[in-house]
Amino acid sequence: MSIDASRTDRARVRRHPERGSVDRRLVHAILDEGLVAHVGLVADGQPLVIPMSYGRAGDRLILHGAVPSRLMQTLAAGVPACVTVTLLDGLVLARSAFSHSMNYRSVVCFGRARPVEAADAKRRALDTLVEHLVPGRTRDARAPNARELSATAVLDFEIEEASAKVRSGPPRESAEDLPLPVWAGVTTAGT
Amino acid sequence: MSIDASRTDRARVRRHPERGSVDRRLVHAILDEGLVAHVGLVADGQPLVIPMSYGRAGDRLILHGAVPSRLMQTLAAGVPACVTVTLLDGLVLARSAFSHSMNYRSVVCFGRARPVEAADAKRRALDTLVEHLVPGRTRDARAPNARELSATAVLDFEIEEASAKVRSGPPRESAEDLPLPVWAGVTTAGT
Repeated sequence: MSIDASRTDRARVRRHPERGSVDRRLVHAILDEGLVAHVGLVADGQPLVIPMSYGRAGDRLILHGAVPSRLMQTLAAGVPACVTVTLLDGLVLARSAFSHSMNYRSVVCFGRARPVEAADAKRRALDTLVEHLVPGRTRDARAPNARELSATAVLDFEIEEASAKVRSGPPRESAEDLPLPVWAGVTTAGT
Repeated sequence: MSIDASRTDRARVRRHPERGSVDRRLVHAILDEGLVAHVGLVADGQPLVIPMSYGRAGDRLILHGAVPSRLMQTLAAGVPACVTVTLLDGLVLARSAFSHSMNYRSVVCFGRARPVEAADAKRRALDTLVEHLVPGRTRDARAPNARELSATAVLDFEIEEASAKVRSGPPRESAEDLPLPVWAGVTTAGT
Protein backbone atom coordinates (compact mmCIF):
# COMPACT_ATOMS: atom_id res chain seq x y z
CA MET A 1 0.00 0.00 0.00
CA SER A 2 1.76 3.15 -1.15
CA ILE A 3 0.86 6.52 0.23
CA ASP A 4 -0.15 9.23 -2.18
CA ALA A 5 -0.43 12.33 -0.04
CA SER A 6 -2.81 14.15 -2.33
CA ARG A 7 -5.50 11.49 -2.20
CA THR A 8 -4.99 10.49 1.40
CA ASP A 9 -5.09 14.10 2.49
CA ARG A 10 -8.36 14.52 0.68
CA ALA A 11 -9.87 11.84 2.87
CA ARG A 12 -8.22 13.12 6.01
CA VAL A 13 -8.78 16.85 5.83
CA ARG A 14 -11.79 16.79 8.07
CA ARG A 15 -12.71 17.96 11.48
CA HIS A 16 -10.13 15.98 13.44
CA PRO A 17 -6.98 15.24 11.45
CA GLU A 18 -5.43 13.74 14.61
CA ARG A 19 -7.82 10.81 14.23
CA GLY A 20 -6.25 9.74 10.95
CA SER A 21 -3.71 6.97 10.44
CA VAL A 22 -2.20 5.07 7.57
CA ASP A 23 -0.95 2.27 9.85
CA ARG A 24 -1.44 -0.88 7.85
CA ARG A 25 -2.17 -3.13 10.83
CA LEU A 26 -4.94 -0.82 11.94
CA VAL A 27 -6.31 -0.65 8.39
CA HIS A 28 -6.31 -4.44 8.14
CA ALA A 29 -7.88 -4.93 11.58
CA ILE A 30 -10.79 -2.64 10.71
CA LEU A 31 -11.27 -4.28 7.32
CA ASP A 32 -11.23 -7.71 8.97
CA GLU A 33 -13.88 -6.75 11.52
CA GLY A 34 -16.27 -5.08 9.09
CA LEU A 35 -18.89 -6.96 7.11
CA VAL A 36 -20.21 -4.36 4.68
CA ALA A 37 -18.09 -2.14 2.44
CA HIS A 38 -19.44 0.96 0.75
CA VAL A 39 -18.00 0.93 -2.74
CA GLY A 40 -17.83 4.25 -4.58
CA LEU A 41 -17.30 4.81 -8.27
CA VAL A 42 -18.15 7.40 -10.88
CA ALA A 43 -20.64 6.55 -13.63
CA ASP A 44 -21.30 9.29 -16.20
CA GLY A 45 -19.95 11.89 -13.80
CA GLN A 46 -22.35 10.80 -11.05
CA PRO A 47 -20.89 9.32 -7.86
CA LEU A 48 -22.48 6.02 -6.88
CA VAL A 49 -22.07 4.36 -3.47
CA ILE A 50 -23.20 0.75 -3.17
CA PRO A 51 -23.01 -1.54 -0.12
CA MET A 52 -21.27 -4.83 -0.82
CA SER A 53 -19.93 -7.73 1.16
CA TYR A 54 -16.21 -8.28 0.84
CA GLY A 55 -13.24 -10.27 2.00
CA ARG A 56 -9.58 -9.32 2.45
CA ALA A 57 -6.50 -11.12 1.16
CA GLY A 58 -3.40 -9.13 2.03
CA ASP A 59 -3.74 -5.70 0.48
CA ARG A 60 -6.53 -6.80 -1.81
CA LEU A 61 -10.26 -6.83 -1.27
CA ILE A 62 -12.46 -9.44 -2.93
CA LEU A 63 -15.84 -8.29 -4.23
CA HIS A 64 -18.44 -10.31 -6.06
CA GLY A 65 -21.74 -9.98 -7.87
CA ALA A 66 -23.77 -11.39 -10.71
CA VAL A 67 -22.10 -11.62 -14.12
CA PRO A 68 -24.71 -9.36 -15.84
CA SER A 69 -24.41 -6.62 -13.17
CA ARG A 70 -23.57 -3.29 -14.74
CA LEU A 71 -21.92 -2.24 -11.49
CA MET A 72 -19.58 -5.23 -11.58
CA GLN A 73 -18.80 -4.61 -15.25
CA THR A 74 -17.97 -0.97 -14.59
CA LEU A 75 -15.70 -1.86 -11.69
CA ALA A 76 -14.08 -4.67 -13.68
CA ALA A 77 -13.06 -2.14 -16.34
CA GLY A 78 -10.60 -0.73 -13.77
CA VAL A 79 -12.17 2.65 -13.06
CA PRO A 80 -10.89 4.49 -9.97
CA ALA A 81 -12.84 3.24 -6.98
CA CYS A 82 -13.08 4.01 -3.28
CA VAL A 83 -13.98 1.33 -0.76
CA THR A 84 -14.94 2.49 2.72
CA VAL A 85 -15.62 0.32 5.77
CA THR A 86 -17.01 1.84 8.96
CA LEU A 87 -17.50 0.25 12.37
CA LEU A 88 -19.80 2.18 14.67
CA ASP A 89 -18.64 1.59 18.24
CA GLY A 90 -20.84 3.93 20.25
CA LEU A 91 -22.81 7.13 20.50
CA VAL A 92 -21.01 9.84 22.43
CA LEU A 93 -23.50 11.91 24.43
CA ALA A 94 -22.21 15.14 25.87
CA ARG A 95 -23.79 17.83 28.03
CA SER A 96 -23.76 20.21 25.08
CA ALA A 97 -25.30 19.42 21.70
CA PHE A 98 -22.10 20.60 20.00
CA SER A 99 -19.93 17.98 21.72
CA HIS A 100 -22.04 15.00 20.69
CA SER A 101 -20.10 12.56 18.56
CA MET A 102 -19.75 8.93 17.60
CA ASN A 103 -17.08 6.42 18.44
CA TYR A 104 -16.11 4.69 15.24
CA ARG A 105 -13.31 3.12 13.29
CA SER A 106 -13.27 3.57 9.53
CA VAL A 107 -11.01 2.87 6.59
CA VAL A 108 -11.06 4.63 3.24
CA CYS A 109 -9.29 2.65 0.50
CA PHE A 110 -8.40 3.91 -2.95
CA GLY A 111 -7.63 1.58 -5.81
CA ARG A 112 -8.94 -0.21 -8.85
CA ALA A 113 -10.50 -3.61 -9.39
CA ARG A 114 -9.67 -6.24 -11.96
CA PRO A 115 -11.77 -9.29 -12.80
CA VAL A 116 -10.78 -12.70 -11.44
CA GLU A 117 -11.44 -15.15 -14.24
CA ALA A 118 -9.47 -18.37 -13.78
CA ALA A 119 -11.65 -20.97 -12.04
CA ASP A 120 -9.06 -21.77 -9.35
CA ALA A 121 -8.46 -18.12 -8.53
CA LYS A 122 -12.23 -17.56 -8.43
CA ARG A 123 -12.67 -20.44 -6.00
CA ARG A 124 -9.98 -19.06 -3.72
CA ALA A 125 -11.50 -15.58 -3.87
CA LEU A 126 -14.97 -16.86 -3.04
CA ASP A 127 -13.51 -18.86 -0.15
CA THR A 128 -12.02 -15.59 1.12
CA LEU A 129 -15.47 -14.00 0.98
CA VAL A 130 -17.20 -16.83 2.84
CA GLU A 131 -14.41 -17.09 5.44
CA HIS A 132 -14.70 -13.33 6.01
CA LEU A 133 -18.44 -13.69 6.67
CA VAL A 134 -18.10 -16.71 8.96
CA PRO A 135 -14.58 -17.97 9.72
CA GLY A 136 -14.33 -21.74 9.17
CA ARG A 137 -17.45 -21.88 7.04
CA THR A 138 -15.73 -23.18 3.90
CA ARG A 139 -15.01 -26.42 5.76
CA ASP A 140 -18.74 -27.02 6.16
CA ALA A 141 -20.56 -25.45 3.24
CA ARG A 142 -20.72 -27.12 -0.17
CA ALA A 143 -18.16 -25.52 -2.49
CA PRO A 144 -19.41 -23.77 -5.64
CA ASN A 145 -19.96 -25.94 -8.68
CA ALA A 146 -19.04 -24.96 -12.24
CA ARG A 147 -22.44 -23.40 -12.95
CA GLU A 148 -22.33 -21.30 -9.79
CA LEU A 149 -18.76 -20.23 -10.49
CA SER A 150 -19.62 -19.07 -13.99
CA ALA A 151 -22.65 -17.12 -12.73
CA THR A 152 -20.52 -15.16 -10.28
CA ALA A 153 -18.39 -12.19 -11.23
CA VAL A 154 -15.43 -11.84 -8.89
CA LEU A 155 -13.30 -8.73 -8.55
CA ASP A 156 -9.90 -8.26 -7.01
CA PHE A 157 -9.60 -4.68 -5.72
CA GLU A 158 -6.03 -3.70 -5.05
CA ILE A 159 -5.69 -1.26 -2.18
CA GLU A 160 -3.28 1.31 -3.58
CA GLU A 161 -3.60 3.46 -0.49
CA ALA A 162 -5.73 3.48 2.60
CA SER A 163 -6.22 5.57 5.68
CA ALA A 164 -7.95 4.72 8.92
CA LYS A 165 -9.79 7.06 11.21
CA VAL A 166 -10.66 6.30 14.80
CA ARG A 167 -12.63 8.15 17.46
CA SER A 168 -12.85 6.49 20.87
CA GLY A 169 -13.38 7.38 24.48
CA PRO A 170 -15.72 9.62 26.43
CA PRO A 171 -17.14 12.96 25.31
CA ARG A 172 -14.67 15.83 25.18
CA GLU A 173 -16.42 18.75 26.84
CA SER A 174 -15.46 22.20 27.92
CA ALA A 175 -15.00 22.68 31.65
CA GLU A 176 -17.89 25.10 31.96
CA ASP A 177 -20.34 22.44 30.72
CA LEU A 178 -19.35 19.82 33.29
CA PRO A 179 -21.67 21.11 36.07
CA LEU A 180 -24.73 20.91 33.80
CA PRO A 181 -27.28 18.39 35.13
CA VAL A 182 -27.25 16.28 31.94
CA TRP A 183 -26.15 12.67 31.62
CA ALA A 184 -23.03 12.29 29.48
CA GLY A 185 -21.20 9.19 28.37
CA VAL A 186 -20.97 6.60 25.63
CA THR A 187 -23.86 4.33 24.70
CA THR A 188 -23.72 1.35 22.39
CA ALA A 189 -24.93 2.13 18.93
CA GLY A 190 -27.58 -0.56 18.91
CA THR A 191 -27.20 -1.33 15.23
CA MET B 1 -38.40 12.96 -4.60
CA SER B 2 -38.64 12.61 -8.36
CA ILE B 3 -37.62 9.43 -10.09
CA ASP B 4 -35.04 9.62 -12.81
CA ALA B 5 -34.99 6.16 -14.30
CA SER B 6 -31.49 6.41 -15.68
CA ARG B 7 -29.84 7.04 -12.32
CA THR B 8 -32.12 4.82 -10.28
CA ASP B 9 -31.62 1.97 -12.70
CA ARG B 10 -27.89 2.38 -12.35
CA ALA B 11 -28.20 1.70 -8.65
CA ARG B 12 -30.69 -1.10 -9.11
CA VAL B 13 -29.15 -3.14 -11.92
CA ARG B 14 -27.57 -5.64 -9.63
CA ARG B 15 -27.97 -9.24 -8.77
CA HIS B 16 -31.55 -9.11 -7.49
CA PRO B 17 -33.57 -6.34 -9.11
CA GLU B 18 -36.69 -7.65 -7.29
CA ARG B 19 -35.17 -6.37 -4.06
CA GLY B 20 -35.36 -2.75 -5.24
CA SER B 21 -38.02 -0.22 -4.33
CA VAL B 22 -38.56 3.49 -4.65
CA ASP B 23 -41.33 3.51 -2.03
CA ARG B 24 -40.83 6.70 -0.10
CA ARG B 25 -42.05 5.38 3.25
CA LEU B 26 -39.56 2.53 3.07
CA VAL B 27 -36.78 4.93 2.08
CA HIS B 28 -37.60 7.20 5.02
CA ALA B 29 -37.90 4.31 7.48
CA ILE B 30 -34.42 3.04 6.58
CA LEU B 31 -32.92 6.53 6.72
CA ASP B 32 -34.54 7.09 10.13
CA GLU B 33 -33.12 3.87 11.55
CA GLY B 34 -29.57 4.31 10.27
CA LEU B 35 -26.92 6.27 12.12
CA VAL B 36 -24.07 6.47 9.62
CA ALA B 37 -24.36 7.58 6.00
CA HIS B 38 -21.69 6.90 3.42
CA VAL B 39 -21.40 10.06 1.38
CA GLY B 40 -19.92 9.77 -2.10
CA LEU B 41 -18.63 12.54 -4.29
CA VAL B 42 -16.10 13.01 -7.06
CA ALA B 43 -12.97 15.06 -6.42
CA ASP B 44 -10.58 15.47 -9.36
CA GLY B 45 -12.14 12.45 -11.05
CA GLN B 46 -11.57 10.25 -8.01
CA PRO B 47 -14.59 8.86 -6.15
CA LEU B 48 -14.47 9.48 -2.43
CA VAL B 49 -16.73 7.76 0.13
CA ILE B 50 -16.79 9.21 3.64
CA PRO B 51 -18.85 8.07 6.63
CA MET B 52 -20.87 10.86 8.21
CA SER B 53 -23.60 11.20 10.76
CA TYR B 54 -26.81 12.68 9.43
CA GLY B 55 -30.39 13.56 10.19
CA ARG B 56 -33.50 13.60 8.02
CA ALA B 57 -36.03 16.39 7.59
CA GLY B 58 -38.62 15.36 5.01
CA ASP B 59 -36.78 14.65 1.77
CA ARG B 60 -33.64 16.39 2.94
CA LEU B 61 -30.65 15.05 4.81
CA ILE B 62 -28.68 17.25 7.18
CA LEU B 63 -24.91 16.82 7.21
CA HIS B 64 -22.34 18.73 9.21
CA GLY B 65 -18.64 19.18 9.64
CA ALA B 66 -15.99 21.70 10.51
CA VAL B 67 -15.98 24.97 8.58
CA PRO B 68 -12.41 24.46 7.22
CA SER B 69 -13.18 20.92 5.99
CA ARG B 70 -12.39 20.56 2.30
CA LEU B 71 -14.97 17.80 2.06
CA MET B 72 -17.68 20.10 3.39
CA GLN B 73 -16.59 22.89 1.05
CA THR B 74 -16.69 20.58 -1.96
CA LEU B 75 -20.15 19.31 -1.05
CA ALA B 76 -21.37 22.84 -0.33
CA ALA B 77 -20.46 23.84 -3.89
CA GLY B 78 -23.36 21.66 -5.04
CA VAL B 79 -21.49 18.84 -6.77
CA PRO B 80 -23.50 15.67 -7.54
CA ALA B 81 -23.43 13.49 -4.46
CA CYS B 82 -24.66 10.04 -3.46
CA VAL B 83 -25.65 9.25 0.11
CA THR B 84 -26.06 5.60 1.03
CA VAL B 85 -27.35 4.17 4.30
CA THR B 86 -27.16 0.46 5.01
CA LEU B 87 -28.63 -1.54 7.90
CA LEU B 88 -27.18 -5.01 8.30
CA ASP B 89 -29.89 -7.26 9.73
CA GLY B 90 -28.27 -10.68 9.63
CA LEU B 91 -25.89 -13.11 8.04
CA VAL B 92 -27.61 -15.70 5.87
CA LEU B 93 -25.83 -19.04 6.14
CA ALA B 94 -26.75 -21.64 3.56
CA ARG B 95 -25.68 -25.22 3.00
CA SER B 96 -23.80 -24.16 -0.14
CA ALA B 97 -21.20 -21.40 -0.21
CA PHE B 98 -22.93 -19.89 -3.27
CA SER B 99 -26.21 -19.29 -1.41
CA HIS B 100 -24.68 -17.37 1.47
CA SER B 101 -26.03 -13.84 1.72
CA MET B 102 -26.82 -11.01 4.08
CA ASN B 103 -30.12 -9.66 5.26
CA TYR B 104 -29.98 -5.92 4.90
CA ARG B 105 -31.93 -2.77 4.13
CA SER B 106 -30.21 -0.03 2.21
CA VAL B 107 -31.06 3.28 0.58
CA VAL B 108 -29.10 4.99 -2.17
CA CYS B 109 -29.92 8.71 -2.48
CA PHE B 110 -28.85 11.00 -5.29
CA GLY B 111 -28.85 14.76 -4.93
CA ARG B 112 -26.83 17.84 -4.16
CA ALA B 113 -26.10 19.72 -1.00
CA ARG B 114 -26.34 23.41 -0.30
CA PRO B 115 -24.91 25.23 2.72
CA VAL B 116 -27.21 26.26 5.56
CA GLU B 117 -26.02 29.67 6.67
CA ALA B 118 -28.71 31.54 8.57
CA ALA B 119 -28.26 31.03 12.31
CA ASP B 120 -31.86 29.96 12.93
CA ALA B 121 -31.83 27.46 10.08
CA LYS B 122 -28.48 26.14 11.31
CA ARG B 123 -29.88 25.66 14.82
CA ARG B 124 -32.87 23.74 13.46
CA ALA B 125 -30.64 21.58 11.27
CA LEU B 126 -28.31 20.77 14.16
CA ASP B 127 -31.34 19.90 16.31
CA THR B 128 -32.37 17.48 13.57
CA LEU B 129 -28.93 15.85 13.74
CA VAL B 130 -28.97 15.49 17.53
CA GLU B 131 -32.56 14.23 17.58
CA HIS B 132 -31.63 11.65 14.94
CA LEU B 133 -28.78 10.40 17.13
CA VAL B 134 -30.84 10.31 20.34
CA PRO B 135 -34.52 11.25 20.12
CA GLY B 136 -35.42 13.81 22.79
CA ARG B 137 -31.83 14.81 23.40
CA THR B 138 -32.27 18.46 22.40
CA ARG B 139 -34.52 18.94 25.46
CA ASP B 140 -31.61 17.99 27.73
CA ALA B 141 -28.36 19.03 26.08
CA ARG B 142 -27.15 22.62 26.08
CA ALA B 143 -27.94 24.24 22.71
CA PRO B 144 -25.04 25.49 20.58
CA ASN B 145 -23.78 28.99 21.33
CA ALA B 146 -22.76 31.53 18.70
CA ARG B 147 -19.13 30.41 18.65
CA GLU B 148 -20.09 26.74 18.20
CA LEU B 149 -22.60 27.61 15.48
CA SER B 150 -20.03 29.57 13.51
CA ALA B 151 -17.47 26.74 13.80
CA THR B 152 -19.91 24.24 12.29
CA ALA B 153 -20.60 23.92 8.58
CA VAL B 154 -24.10 22.59 7.96
CA LEU B 155 -25.32 21.16 4.68
CA ASP B 156 -28.81 20.50 3.44
CA PHE B 157 -28.74 17.60 0.97
CA GLU B 158 -31.89 17.42 -1.10
CA ILE B 159 -32.83 13.87 -2.03
CA GLU B 160 -33.66 14.19 -5.72
CA GLU B 161 -34.19 10.46 -6.04
CA ALA B 162 -33.71 7.45 -3.86
CA SER B 163 -34.13 3.72 -4.06
CA ALA B 164 -34.26 1.18 -1.28
CA LYS B 165 -33.10 -2.39 -1.42
CA VAL B 166 -34.10 -5.07 1.05
CA ARG B 167 -33.10 -8.69 1.52
CA SER B 168 -34.83 -10.58 4.33
CA GLY B 169 -35.72 -14.10 5.32
CA PRO B 170 -33.98 -17.46 5.37
CA PRO B 171 -31.43 -18.75 2.84
CA ARG B 172 -32.79 -19.58 -0.59
CA GLU B 173 -31.27 -22.95 -1.47
CA SER B 174 -31.73 -25.46 -4.21
CA ALA B 175 -33.65 -28.60 -3.25
CA GLU B 176 -30.67 -30.88 -3.79
CA ASP B 177 -28.69 -29.05 -1.11
CA LEU B 178 -31.30 -29.42 1.62
CA PRO B 179 -30.21 -32.92 2.73
CA LEU B 180 -26.61 -31.76 3.31
CA PRO B 181 -25.62 -32.07 6.98
CA VAL B 182 -24.77 -28.37 7.36
CA TRP B 183 -26.50 -25.86 9.63
CA ALA B 184 -28.34 -23.17 7.70
CA GLY B 185 -30.22 -20.14 8.90
CA VAL B 186 -29.85 -16.47 9.75
CA THR B 187 -27.52 -15.21 12.46
CA THR B 188 -27.37 -11.70 13.83
CA ALA B 189 -24.62 -9.63 12.32
CA GLY B 190 -22.99 -8.87 15.65
CA THR B 191 -21.88 -5.38 14.62
